[in-house]
Amino acid sequence: MRARVALREKGVEFEYRVGDLTNKSPLLLQSNPIHKKIPVLIHNGKPVCESLNVVHYVDEAWPDKNPFFPSDPYGRTHARFWDDFVDKKFSEAQFKIWGKKGEEQEEGKKEFIEAVKILESELGDKPYFGGDSFGYVDISLITFYSWFQAYEKFGNFSIEAKSPKLIAWAKMCMEKESVSKSLPDSEKIVAYAAEFRKNSLGSE
Amino acid sequence: MRARVALREKGVEFEYRVGDLTNKSPLLLQSNPIHKKIPVLIHNGKPVCESLNVVHYVDEAWPDKNPFFPSDPYGRTHARFWDDFVDKKFSEAQFKIWGKKGEEQEEGKKEFIEAVKILESELGDKPYFGGDSFGYVDISLITFYSWFQAYEKFGNFSIEAKSPKLIAWAKMCMEKESVSKSLPDSEKIVAYAAEFRKNSLGSE
Repeated sequence: MRARVALREKGVEFEYRVGDLTNKSPLLLQSNPIHKKIPVLIHNGKPVCESLNVVHYVDEAWPDKNPFFPSDPYGRTHARFWDDFVDKKFSEAQFKIWGKKGEEQEEGKKEFIEAVKILESELGDKPYFGGDSFGYVDISLITFYSWFQAYEKFGNFSIEAKSPKLIAWAKMCMEKESVSKSLPDSEKIVAYAAEFRKNSLGSE
Repeated sequence: MRARVALREKGVEFEYRVGDLTNKSPLLLQSNPIHKKIPVLIHNGKPVCESLNVVHYVDEAWPDKNPFFPSDPYGRTHARFWDDFVDKKFSEAQFKIWGKKGEEQEEGKKEFIEAVKILESELGDKPYFGGDSFGYVDISLITFYSWFQAYEKFGNFSIEAKSPKLIAWAKMCMEKESVSKSLPDSEKIVAYAAEFRKNSLGSE
């Protein structure tokens, strides 16, 4: 999703291929022999692997339109710091809400609410994490928005009650075609999470 | 260590402060309130946190001397990919060798040797991971070199026998003053690891 949002922000046309991860294609194995994971962006015949790497690459390969980073070194390191926060703290916490149960789930919920409050405070009154323009941290975080309904359902809480500004930010991001066209439907995610819970935890 | 190597590569003078991590200073807590971890580089009164972020920042704040990244987008994403490999796969595996015992340690040794072979193949016949010049991936990886003696002692194996090119690369990096001045003495690391093993595993 991050890769698609990034490419659409730059106005780059691309062919989107969905792979069967239970039976990985020769193209995937050859393009990402180390991790054998998606996403892989193939540009000029060369593979770029890992979603954040792809976003970074897209920004540097198409630098003229909608830059994802500010131009000053401090602004750039600030964006990388928050991106790392999303990729580690936020990402680990959210998984525990829909992928775990009992004590671990409760712990995840607590960590998630804490992460969301920290992010809300970092967002402050800016329209985007990047300031006035949609950037790197926005791309990283907005791709989780499709999952919010699942967090609320399986975690039994309201995210908006905890962090109204973050929800306002997400809704504004969703007005961008680059985002709305790239994110899956929340209902499908809830169904996917329910199926996952049934299979791996023995309960919805 | 990464921060110091990076600053020395750029010829930047800095004041180095060692903090007591069992009693974190107000300066550290105020500079990195989210993670409360070292390293923190303070430049022009602003904090930059997390070692890879610091290296990245140093490269962008002092762009003229010894660039750590190639200038083309593909070369840059390639460096970020390998850096991520060092920071995740290599880093996790190495800890298990000196910080674990029994089955977990054996697993770590297997993962470590696999990672080292992958890195050796990526290095190929180039003098540095970055090609002809010492760069981002070199900085990330060389800081582990002080630990090699500890891996060999506690893992009971020879790294050079598994990956002679990697050892040749490390020795060449150590000829740089930026590196040799920044890395701790291997004997001290072995003693530190032995102490850690005694305290946390109940055995050397």
